[in-house]
Amino acid sequence: MRNFRIERPDEALRPLLQQKIDNLTKPKGSLGQLERIAVRVGMIQQTLTPELHAPQNLLFAADHGIVDEGISLSPKEITWQQTLHFVRSGGTGIGFLCRQHGFRLKVIDAGVDFDFPAGCGIIDRKIRKGTSNYLHGAAMTAEELDRCLDVGAEMVDRAVEEGSNILSFGEMGITNTSSSSIWMHFFTGISLAECIGAGSGLDDEGIRRKYEVLRQAVARYAGAGSPADLIRWFGGFEMAMAVGGMLRAAERKIAILVDGFIMSACILAASKLHPEVLDYALFGHVGDEQGHRRLLEAMHAEPILHLGLRLGEGSGAVCAYPIVESAVRMLDEMDTFQAMQITKYF
Amino acid sequence: MRNFRIERPDEALRPLLQQKIDNLTKPKGSLGQLERIAVRVGMIQQTLTPELHAPQNLLFAADHGIVDEGISLSPKEITWQQTLHFVRSGGTGIGFLCRQHGFRLKVIDAGVDFDFPAGCGIIDRKIRKGTSNYLHGAAMTAEELDRCLDVGAEMVDRAVEEGSNILSFGEMGITNTSSSSIWMHFFTGISLAECIGAGSGLDDEGIRRKYEVLRQAVARYAGAGSPADLIRWFGGFEMAMAVGGMLRAAERKIAILVDGFIMSACILAASKLHPEVLDYALFGHVGDEQGHRRLLEAMHAEPILHLGLRLGEGSGAVCAYPIVESAVRMLDEMDTFQAMQITKYF
Repeated sequence: MRNFRIERPDEALRPLLQQKIDNLTKPKGSLGQLERIAVRVGMIQQTLTPELHAPQNLLFAADHGIVDEGISLSPKEITWQQTLHFVRSGGTGIGFLCRQHGFRLKVIDAGVDFDFPAGCGIIDRKIRKGTSNYLHGAAMTAEELDRCLDVGAEMVDRAVEEGSNILSFGEMGITNTSSSSIWMHFFTGISLAECIGAGSGLDDEGIRRKYEVLRQAVARYAGAGSPADLIRWFGGFEMAMAVGGMLRAAERKIAILVDGFIMSACILAASKLHPEVLDYALFGHVGDEQGHRRLLEAMHAEPILHLGLRLGEGSGAVCAYPIVESAVRMLDEMDTFQAMQITKYF
Repeated sequence: MRNFRIERPDEALRPLLQQKIDNLTKPKGSLGQLERIAVRVGMIQQTLTPELHAPQNLLFAADHGIVDEGISLSPKEITWQQTLHFVRSGGTGIGFLCRQHGFRLKVIDAGVDFDFPAGCGIIDRKIRKGTSNYLHGAAMTAEELDRCLDVGAEMVDRAVEEGSNILSFGEMGITNTSSSSIWMHFFTGISLAECIGAGSGLDDEGIRRKYEVLRQAVARYAGAGSPADLIRWFGGFEMAMAVGGMLRAAERKIAILVDGFIMSACILAASKLHPEVLDYALFGHVGDEQGHRRLLEAMHAEPILHLGLRLGEGSGAVCAYPIVESAVRMLDEMDTFQAMQITKYF
């Protein structure tokens, strides 16, 4: 498997960042979470004057074999329809948010069960037309996982070449909340029932059925138990690519904007391979999916927004971008008490 | 006292807004609070395709006689120093946020105890150099309150003439959290102790002293008990102007972006004069000031951001602006299932 060499940010800068922030013309601590975001971005970029450039949203799409078990309210065809929609129209959720905040949107076919027309704008990295049904065995082979990690890394490298130093990751894939719940269960130890939410609108009976299927899948798991094995056994191609992308972003010291429940599960999985990846993460939001809050807590993550979003696509990450920009501007543009000859207050 | 004629938005449009939102290409309800903000803005503008134009932040500044009681950690001179700072440099908290989000910043001297140099950029509407100490009587006269309401309305009228249809309100005034706590106490019935927070960093002993002074001021109150009388007795000139501005904004059907604890207390006070004003409000954030959360709850307000801000100046309101813009873009730019021939899912 691809080896990622992720360095932790040098802690020597942290007190200097805090000192700079404490000398800005405002009561100490009065910009709350903006101050903590500023420290995080400064640490990632190892500078007292961080900058954000050419943000991109990498949106990976794929189908899942487990969909055959009827555990999703949404029909499988939504995956290809929406994936095509992302490149054909600016009128998707992620589309208008990317336009608003100057994000370049890249849509990557990781394994959608559809033949997209050539030249449609989707980046073709299809592994195959959906994972295998993990109720009966591993969703993907070890070789397929390797390829996914490589593709994720490739997309990050391209973005960095294009001048980006902040990337958000998004997904489209009917039933990928199920994979996320199972990863969360294994990687946090929280009971499976507590890791399962409503997906896109399941009722209580639907959730019970989903739980029953996932419980069986977990009970039948016969793999090696390592993080990499759990990732390939239950993951989706789009999720494995996001894992690879996040690890490569951290390796290249690029800020990672984490979206909702599924992308949070991906960075959790990534952190089981390389814990240092979390030092490069900014958590865009906490959504309505049951378990998302607990998943973030398990990573000691502080989400930026609390808007009850549950769209995926990277929407919560991109929506949070202006707050990250505010934090960076605070550090770069605010005056100090000394420079302005203003009485220092607290 | 000036009469404001505020109409409630016509409820006939609400189901049409909801219907439009439910037909956008996303699972129903999946954009969470963005959907509720979109409904609110659509209702204010009475259209299915709202637009935001030329936002302004109206920042009112004044001093308070109660400062003589030593209940603030920050020295009184901060009021004039920061007020001048707002117009002399873009390097204030509100300065960089206004620049980021395209807000025009207007700074109004409502009653600062300082002679600002002519032509410095501060709009001079000084009532006098600070209110009277409300430990010993009314902070301002009924005539002064009238003038404040008129000035607030005048500033809104100017902004509307300049093309604005969304305004945020901010303040600068050492000890104005005290006035806010007292208004909150009278207008919600919540005990004074629960309405008092740390201001800009008071310790427990400081809070006890502040409580003791405010408790005495409340106990000695000898006014008529009407909302207008309580506003003038305990308010600041900057706060009374904000009240007038908010009422005029609602009268002109302009969206009001509410900032932190102090501006929340102002719209609460405004709502005691004209309850309909709340239909025009968007609450930018919930801050760290103890009591802010309860104050918002008392108005059934749903804050947009939860960033722990406590700077004032309008900073939390302006910081929330891109989220309001996202909500409006959702309504204006997203495709419908029907138009895109995508299977409707939930």
